[in-house]
Amino acid sequence: MMHLSPPEPVLGKPGIKHSPQETDQSFNDKYVVLYDFSGIGAKASLGITHLPSDTCVEYEAATKEFNSLLDNLEAAGLHTEVRPGYDQTILVFVQASKQLLGNTVYKSRVKDWLYSITQAHPGGDKDTVVPGWYEAEDILAVYHLVLWPKEMGGAGITPQVGQWKNVKSIFPLHNEKVNQSLLRHLSRRFILTVEDFDHIRDLLGSKVSSREPNKFEQIAFYFAFIQTYLMFLTFPAITGVITWLFLPKYSLAYAILTSVWCTVFLEYWKLREVDLSIRWNVRGVSKTEVNRPEFKYERLIVDETGRTMHYFTKSKQIARQLLQIPFIIVAAAALGAIICCVFAVEVLISEAFEGPYLFYLEYLPTILLAVAIPYISSSLEGVAKLLTEYENHRTADQHEMSLTQKIFMLSIITNYLPILLTAFVYVPFGDVVVPPLKRVLQRVIPGLEPRFSTRAFRPDSDRLRNEVIALTVTGQLTSFFEENILPLLKHQFQGWYREYRRTHSKDAMLLSMVTDDPEEAKFLKTCRNQATLLQYNVQEDIAELVLQFGYLALFSPVWPLISLGFLINNWIELRSDFGKICIECKRPAPTRAERIGPWVLSLDILTWLGSISTAAIVHLFHFDEADSGRWVTLPITIFVSEHILLGLRAFTRCIFERLGSVQIRKERNERYARRFSYLEQIEANKRAGVNLSPAERERRKSVLVASTDSFWTKQIDDGMSAAAGLRLIGLAREWEEKNGYGPEKKKV
Amino acid sequence: MMHLSPPEPVLGKPGIKHSPQETDQSFNDKYVVLYDFSGIGAKASLGITHLPSDTCVEYEAATKEFNSLLDNLEAAGLHTEVRPGYDQTILVFVQASKQLLGNTVYKSRVKDWLYSITQAHPGGDKDTVVPGWYEAEDILAVYHLVLWPKEMGGAGITPQVGQWKNVKSIFPLHNEKVNQSLLRHLSRRFILTVEDFDHIRDLLGSKVSSREPNKFEQIAFYFAFIQTYLMFLTFPAITGVITWLFLPKYSLAYAILTSVWCTVFLEYWKLREVDLSIRWNVRGVSKTEVNRPEFKYERLIVDETGRTMHYFTKSKQIARQLLQIPFIIVAAAALGAIICCVFAVEVLISEAFEGPYLFYLEYLPTILLAVAIPYISSSLEGVAKLLTEYENHRTADQHEMSLTQKIFMLSIITNYLPILLTAFVYVPFGDVVVPPLKRVLQRVIPGLEPRFSTRAFRPDSDRLRNEVIALTVTGQLTSFFEENILPLLKHQFQGWYREYRRTHSKDAMLLSMVTDDPEEAKFLKTCRNQATLLQYNVQEDIAELVLQFGYLALFSPVWPLISLGFLINNWIELRSDFGKICIECKRPAPTRAERIGPWVLSLDILTWLGSISTAAIVHLFHFDEADSGRWVTLPITIFVSEHILLGLRAFTRCIFERLGSVQIRKERNERYARRFSYLEQIEANKRAGVNLSPAERERRKSVLVASTDSFWTKQIDDGMSAAAGLRLIGLAREWEEKNGYGPEKKKV
Repeated sequence: MMHLSPPEPVLGKPGIKHSPQETDQSFNDKYVVLYDFSGIGAKASLGITHLPSDTCVEYEAATKEFNSLLDNLEAAGLHTEVRPGYDQTILVFVQASKQLLGNTVYKSRVKDWLYSITQAHPGGDKDTVVPGWYEAEDILAVYHLVLWPKEMGGAGITPQVGQWKNVKSIFPLHNEKVNQSLLRHLSRRFILTVEDFDHIRDLLGSKVSSREPNKFEQIAFYFAFIQTYLMFLTFPAITGVITWLFLPKYSLAYAILTSVWCTVFLEYWKLREVDLSIRWNVRGVSKTEVNRPEFKYERLIVDETGRTMHYFTKSKQIARQLLQIPFIIVAAAALGAIICCVFAVEVLISEAFEGPYLFYLEYLPTILLAVAIPYISSSLEGVAKLLTEYENHRTADQHEMSLTQKIFMLSIITNYLPILLTAFVYVPFGDVVVPPLKRVLQRVIPGLEPRFSTRAFRPDSDRLRNEVIALTVTGQLTSFFEENILPLLKHQFQGWYREYRRTHSKDAMLLSMVTDDPEEAKFLKTCRNQATLLQYNVQEDIAELVLQFGYLALFSPVWPLISLGFLINNWIELRSDFGKICIECKRPAPTRAERIGPWVLSLDILTWLGSISTAAIVHLFHFDEADSGRWVTLPITIFVSEHILLGLRAFTRCIFERLGSVQIRKERNERYARRFSYLEQIEANKRAGVNLSPAERERRKSVLVASTDSFWTKQIDDGMSAAAGLRLIGLAREWEEKNGYGPEKKKV
Repeated sequence: MMHLSPPEPVLGKPGIKHSPQETDQSFNDKYVVLYDFSGIGAKASLGITHLPSDTCVEYEAATKEFNSLLDNLEAAGLHTEVRPGYDQTILVFVQASKQLLGNTVYKSRVKDWLYSITQAHPGGDKDTVVPGWYEAEDILAVYHLVLWPKEMGGAGITPQVGQWKNVKSIFPLHNEKVNQSLLRHLSRRFILTVEDFDHIRDLLGSKVSSREPNKFEQIAFYFAFIQTYLMFLTFPAITGVITWLFLPKYSLAYAILTSVWCTVFLEYWKLREVDLSIRWNVRGVSKTEVNRPEFKYERLIVDETGRTMHYFTKSKQIARQLLQIPFIIVAAAALGAIICCVFAVEVLISEAFEGPYLFYLEYLPTILLAVAIPYISSSLEGVAKLLTEYENHRTADQHEMSLTQKIFMLSIITNYLPILLTAFVYVPFGDVVVPPLKRVLQRVIPGLEPRFSTRAFRPDSDRLRNEVIALTVTGQLTSFFEENILPLLKHQFQGWYREYRRTHSKDAMLLSMVTDDPEEAKFLKTCRNQATLLQYNVQEDIAELVLQFGYLALFSPVWPLISLGFLINNWIELRSDFGKICIECKRPAPTRAERIGPWVLSLDILTWLGSISTAAIVHLFHFDEADSGRWVTLPITIFVSEHILLGLRAFTRCIFERLGSVQIRKERNERYARRFSYLEQIEANKRAGVNLSPAERERRKSVLVASTDSFWTKQIDDGMSAAAGLRLIGLAREWEEKNGYGPEKKKV
């Protein structure tokens, strides 16, 4: 269905009705597809094409591709409007008709019922049209219409993958008015409640157009998590301040309190997650996942049910996944080496120099390391992403899980290794390790010798504390800068550069050639701007929190004020993150999720490691340093601490499970009511023998008489069984009376 | 509906049709209720009643109760036949009509569907009658008809509880012919396959009457477990023999192999359990549990859905459950004290005597302990049962879980403490502990002094091995005796005693007063015999296996031949257990279960403890005894071993989960097919935009034109969007050609 002879193109046709700015524009039924043909243009402009006709061929290809893009969208029943974008991009605005949208929403609800995510069938038939309950539900429907493969009724537009590598992104439009109001609302509230998360998920409202911009569950889960974490943080923050003021350094009591806190918090969150997933009707939603568009299958299998399966050899997949083991080892070794080097330099500086700025100079490498870590991590994460891509997971969930595991391992190494080195190598074994280091340095730089202080090496036990402070404080600041300031600057700069290129470059910039309809200009400007924004990645924000939790779980007794810092940081983070989503990022495609993802496992592991690390730190630093016996008893301390924690975890889980949650109870009651009403219907004839009519009794009797077995027909008439039994009892009674038991015997 | 004026009782009315022995009797629709009025008679005969009328009152009560029993059974729609039993018992034979039985089976299938245990609704309406797929399904239906409360359509006959304390038991009849054939079949097969478990669950057959006696899933699970365990045991048995022949004592290699084996076996079983539960359609069956009849509620609550809830304060229940902590502590202390005493005596014997029989004398206390342990345990188990009863769990599953936990703790202590004492106290610290013991004994028995050998104390490292051999071998033999021989002897003796009492006692024995119809005599004899048999308890058999597994997990390197012994024992056990069920026990009421119960957790804990215990034993005994440094490194060994095991477990679980199981895949496919066919119906109009008629296009267009937003109406006609996009691409192309890129530039 190619439209080869189009009518006169209509770009700037004057509007006959209100302009978009004036109307109460709806955002629930729209999507934007960003098509970029600069790849083709660039190829041409770089002179890769050799023949005059090559440019034509290239543009011919672009034409074909664009035609096919629009065909696919229209075949899915979507209406399209085309407008020029920045540089050599075209914005394809996609709109679903009310009928199509409502029907897609309805079908997705039926699917939820089929997959037991919701309990009641929504009713209706294949042509039913329902309004979405909230904006995100509609947006999700449009998203599916654009993204899902043709077999599932979508247009199959998978940005940057395969056939559609020139489709740079697809995104819904920000509902700025509501964004603003929610942002204002959030900034006014000190403590967020579950209703606020509901607001983030769907603001109570009756009309779609007046509803909340909805990041859907995955993001709502993130906010619920950060808020729960925040509330829980007040406890270690308060006890931390008390410890800092009144208790000795490396306090055992504080370590125990924090370990218990970690466990309780985690088990509480696990329950809360289930609770929220039921509240938001997404429990079991991970079952409905479709293939990732990037999934490469080896062959198609059609099984006996007529189901087409995308088959990829399982053993091959497992083999590919085992590749992550060498990757983690190599990455760990490389990172470890870098960190050890920084560490050595740092130690040597502190040894080689003496002077007023020593303190600042001494921690300079650590601070540099703290600043560098995010960059090192992100390059290794790039490798991890490639590797995960190669592992070729079928569903997005598996893919994410695998990637998260890798990134988590890397984060652990980059963030915690320096502290672990300080705690367990530098401070206790400094006097063994440092002198050889010095000698190596003296040989490398012979002139350095006289500068070394002649004093004996004296490892500084405050150093551990300072290291933790430096890493956590700079870490939080860096990540704040990286998350909130850097993207703004980058975006600003890109704007300037685009403007510069538009005026100074000879590249074909569409906006230099076409002017917008003045009525649309403002709206188009917003859309173009949104198209240049980053994609929001909720995983990164969660990873940051998990890492922070790790500091707390592993090193809390080193510096008890750490949790107060985190508390403040997270209070700001919660609000700034929402701002980031609204202002610095494209509106995220709604993603349904039933939990914060595979991170709970990471938190579990961190709590576990924490029980080991905390015990070891307190054991080593709390007691007298001179006592060499502490190394002998260290494994016992660790063993005891670890097993107490594991026992505590089992106990907490058991208690929380027993107590249950409001939503779980509610769901159970609803399910019960549904079953009950059903059973009521089929059990109208329960208690089959009550109130039988005489005719029915006769009928039953005749059935029994007709049976072949004489045993079962002897007491067939009413009351005969009872009579037979009573006769037996009576016989026993007579016997007893006859044989002198009972009243007669009493008289003897 | 009391039948106060019954017609002439029909007890020995001559049969007009075939006798039960001649016909192909069915066992699927029958149940036997054993009513015992001897409690009342005994009361009267013991002279507790003071007035002549008291005996009358007592018998009046019995008459009333018996009448009410029959009324209840008949109100549930069941047909009854009454026959005299042994002593002062009455056998009430209960039969469900084909129509009632089929309808009950049907309803129970509908319930399975409602609770998502099965996936497809069975069809039909409230009066549908279906034949049971296998005998046990029918028996379960009759069981429900007899046992379930009246609100649920049953007769509410709860044996030995409350109102029905004189109903001693209710049981189905053994289908002896099929029992025999299955027994023969099992004894002929060397290795049982999943089909054999199916046979145990339901033999493939088309007619109910020709079907297999079915112990239902709980027992089938037990057999599947023992067979799986048996198959896995061959590995440690073979490696054990090799180790015993060629490797040094306390071999590290064997210890590692066995730990890995334990983990792999356990993870495999977890998957297998799910697989079987799907195969047998019982997955999720624990959700359908009704209240235990013994459950005492504080008050009834009727909630908004009209559901009646039996409420018992949660905090009270938790408080009661916390009682088990002091119980376990006290029991452990008491048991520990007994074991330590036996131990001390044993050590002193070995020290005090020297002579040819020393070896036998030395281990006599251990053997006595091994024989005594089952009796000590069972008395403590009695206390545990009372305590669990007091905890007042709502469902049978929770009750069982709680009881199992307690019994498991007790078993651990009684069975493993002696070995642990030997391994970690007696052998390494004997020279410290034994001399003071000697002194105490000398003070108590002053004459003993000269007999003590004067040689210095030399703990015997072979002693640990001998202890393990003695405990496991005698343990297995005792339990075999206790399980298979003792009940037979007991049963025999009871028969003799009953006969003796019948002829010599003056008690009212019904059988002395009434004679059976000769045609029924043989059948009634069988039934009376079955009524005196024990109730089969599958939990005890599983507990035995778990305990055995524990020996293997905890102490395998001590004596590698242990697994060979277990292999042989279990091969016999598997067969003898089935015989036991058929011959020595009442036919068990069918119990639906989705797993072997809470034992998997116990096995998990044992494997975990095993990683600690095995590591410690190998560490301490493998190396030179004189090396005192081994105590310092012991915690490190344990730490490493434990964490390797935990890692291995996670890895194994991950691999097994990835590989999945046949049944899980099958279930997934079925579920998919069901959903697919449903979606096919509602998605008839997918790809909404394909093949639209011109009229439909016009209609959609008009809807868009009617919208208020001019933006979305500019490219409303077919192909206009495409044309607009192509114009933009074309503009870029023109620009490039004009500005010297492309072919023109090439010429420069």
